[in-house]
Amino acid sequence: MTATKEIPYKIYLEEHEMPKQWYNVRADMKNKPAPLLDPKTKKPMSAEELEKVFCKEMVKQELDDTTPYIDIPQEIRDFYKMYRPAPLVRAYCLEEKLQTPAKIYYKHEGNNTSGSHKLNSAIAQAFYAKQQGLKGVTTETGAGQWGTALAMACSYFELDCNVYMVKCSYEQKPHRREVMRTYGATVTPSPSMTTEIGKQINEQFPGTTGSLGCAISEAVESATGKEGYRYTLGSVLSQVLLHQTIVGLETKAALDKYDITPDIVIGCAGGGSNLGGLISPFAGEMLRGEKDYQLIAVEPASCPTLTRGKFAYDYCDTGKVCPLQKMYTLGSGFIPSSTHAGGLRYHGMSSIVSQLYHDGIMEARSVEQTEVFAAAVEFAKVEGILPAPESSHAIKVAIDEALKCKETGEEKTIVFCLTGTGYFDMYAYERFNNGEMGDYIPTEEELAHGFASLPEIK
Amino acid sequence: MTATKEIPYKIYLEEHEMPKQWYNVRADMKNKPAPLLDPKTKKPMSAEELEKVFCKEMVKQELDDTTPYIDIPQEIRDFYKMYRPAPLVRAYCLEEKLQTPAKIYYKHEGNNTSGSHKLNSAIAQAFYAKQQGLKGVTTETGAGQWGTALAMACSYFELDCNVYMVKCSYEQKPHRREVMRTYGATVTPSPSMTTEIGKQINEQFPGTTGSLGCAISEAVESATGKEGYRYTLGSVLSQVLLHQTIVGLETKAALDKYDITPDIVIGCAGGGSNLGGLISPFAGEMLRGEKDYQLIAVEPASCPTLTRGKFAYDYCDTGKVCPLQKMYTLGSGFIPSSTHAGGLRYHGMSSIVSQLYHDGIMEARSVEQTEVFAAAVEFAKVEGILPAPESSHAIKVAIDEALKCKETGEEKTIVFCLTGTGYFDMYAYERFNNGEMGDYIPTEEELAHGFASLPEIK
Repeated sequence: MTATKEIPYKIYLEEHEMPKQWYNVRADMKNKPAPLLDPKTKKPMSAEELEKVFCKEMVKQELDDTTPYIDIPQEIRDFYKMYRPAPLVRAYCLEEKLQTPAKIYYKHEGNNTSGSHKLNSAIAQAFYAKQQGLKGVTTETGAGQWGTALAMACSYFELDCNVYMVKCSYEQKPHRREVMRTYGATVTPSPSMTTEIGKQINEQFPGTTGSLGCAISEAVESATGKEGYRYTLGSVLSQVLLHQTIVGLETKAALDKYDITPDIVIGCAGGGSNLGGLISPFAGEMLRGEKDYQLIAVEPASCPTLTRGKFAYDYCDTGKVCPLQKMYTLGSGFIPSSTHAGGLRYHGMSSIVSQLYHDGIMEARSVEQTEVFAAAVEFAKVEGILPAPESSHAIKVAIDEALKCKETGEEKTIVFCLTGTGYFDMYAYERFNNGEMGDYIPTEEELAHGFASLPEIK
Repeated sequence: MTATKEIPYKIYLEEHEMPKQWYNVRADMKNKPAPLLDPKTKKPMSAEELEKVFCKEMVKQELDDTTPYIDIPQEIRDFYKMYRPAPLVRAYCLEEKLQTPAKIYYKHEGNNTSGSHKLNSAIAQAFYAKQQGLKGVTTETGAGQWGTALAMACSYFELDCNVYMVKCSYEQKPHRREVMRTYGATVTPSPSMTTEIGKQINEQFPGTTGSLGCAISEAVESATGKEGYRYTLGSVLSQVLLHQTIVGLETKAALDKYDITPDIVIGCAGGGSNLGGLISPFAGEMLRGEKDYQLIAVEPASCPTLTRGKFAYDYCDTGKVCPLQKMYTLGSGFIPSSTHAGGLRYHGMSSIVSQLYHDGIMEARSVEQTEVFAAAVEFAKVEGILPAPESSHAIKVAIDEALKCKETGEEKTIVFCLTGTGYFDMYAYERFNNGEMGDYIPTEEELAHGFASLPEIK
């Protein structure tokens, strides 16, 4: 019989303890992220220029690198109350399985229909679009989490939602597509015949199943060409990372409630928004010289942006229509292999995360696909949650660190973000269960090909 | 701006407030459910006979109709802590959308990887099997929720798990199958060539895609033929309903915490375990003459067990290998049309629920498929959760009752159970979104055909 445990299995904040402001870590950074550049003129973009693409309030948040706390509007807080606070779970069963003296906690962001943390920013972006009196928004989606989250958010505020979904996902993931349609979104396989760029690509590459880069270009073209529409993005930008700080702020509040100080904080890294949101409050304390933590970004070995990329200005999309950003990047011409963690297959990285990494506030590791799925299944069996492939990158490193503690006898406290559930990723699990999954690490030549696509910026 | 609300969006019990005992409503029933009969001799079955099929502790619970409270073993309570307490959610957004003075609450049982309340009994059945020193368990699954829940529970206790999955589901729902396989279960399409009954059926009906009745027969044959194995069932039996009272007990505790007394309590009804578990504590108060509630069972019009069935002894399975039970039934020969709420396509009903209905403690309503999906989509859009088709039957009647309150101005408190999420039901949603879904109500002739299969019992 197990003794009653001091810390509950799940720490929930009370409604009144939920954060009322997002935290803008840029305010505490000595080295601010470099400004966004116009893709044509290569000059810093003004608010006015950005407002043609994004809605006003989002542009304001994107450019604000001095205000430390930004109020979360009541309407967004009300929506947050429907699926938040996300529990901070003590992984007692995983600890026992591993026989580690480490204490493992995970922030479970998958308890909503979008299945991930993406909803935290989607609802904010939809709210500001509504507030501005827009008719609707457009976006692109690859794996489908972001598109689903935006569809849910737009449905709530009764906004029109147009999603360009990479054609191969559209065909391979009909269930994701139907969730979006159920929430009233229009889902168009990309490349489509509804935009100029889509028509061009269809003509140039007949029968192509599309790419994220192409879908972004179509979504931007569609948004900027229609009265009352703006474009939205689910990661990479600083505005998105700002909204995702709700993850880190809740995590920190839950830990503080029980006087727990973590030693290690781990997040998976694709575009960097969940990672940045998770670590922001901890990085802030480090930047202000108050405390020290080990912050770890985990990326796929197949797309090693931080561990093997360059810190340089680059295009955010392969179509080169979005602003340029200074970040760790493999080059917009880098083509990641088709691994199953679709949300982490991105050549670049949030400029905030990139700068923090460059300044030594954070470290990074890369892990291979099959070891990630092995960790995912181990976790699922003892903790009862089937994780998303993306989230499982963080699980893998959390287990690694817990096993190190087993060797050294250290009782470290490890916290990671479980960004989402894997219910729409069963094809990937099937391949793993059947022993059909492989690993892929890009060669130096392949990386060189990607770097060759970097623009020259003076 | 919305004012701060007195009742939080989600009421969570603290860990120490979670129920430590299940409630056995039979102890408070004057008219006890009739005993189970042997399918061959038609005589009441002894514990010894039942123990050949089910594990010992389960038989004890099945036969105990006098002990009001039964301790939940610590090991099960520890597992419950991983995904419970399930939140009792105030549906503020739905209320606003409907512009109703009614207060609507739902118990959200879908926040676990099995996607439904089924895990509440699966973990108990796996625990007792483990305690008895068994090697493993067998079961059947149609839609897949129960099989998934049992696979998770067996994985946790390191028990072997064999699931006979109706062949058409096995082929149409590969994702459900893969979740079970990920949790280490062996999933066999039924009818298979691994059992005598399977071989017979395959020979008799070449190319058949199977039925639940056949899968039950295969699972029972497999369990009773192998040393160290027993059969498990996910609904209908009183032991299962007992475990599901955790749903009702938590609901009542959460309501009591805020001094809320419900007027109406609503559950969907297939085999009756979620409904019975939800209403048990409320029915208990009615049986003891302490309070009065309006308890409503909701079933599909295509399978109207309570509203159009007979109260009689019947076989629980079409293969006629399971014990006979006195219940509301359409006859084991009744073939429900292939609607999308697979979990509610059952010809019979829990004997406890049947007796409570017969004695007027509870009422029943039937609803049609398309109106159920319309309610599901309405709910999903405002409450952010995509519900299972089964659960949406309860949503439909909750909305109906809330709209009645709008007409009369009554501020009734309505509680329903959201048994699960619909993430693996997107094909059904797709048909609804495309306007391809129909309704089906059995004719009197079709019902008569089912009733003709009822056994004669003196």
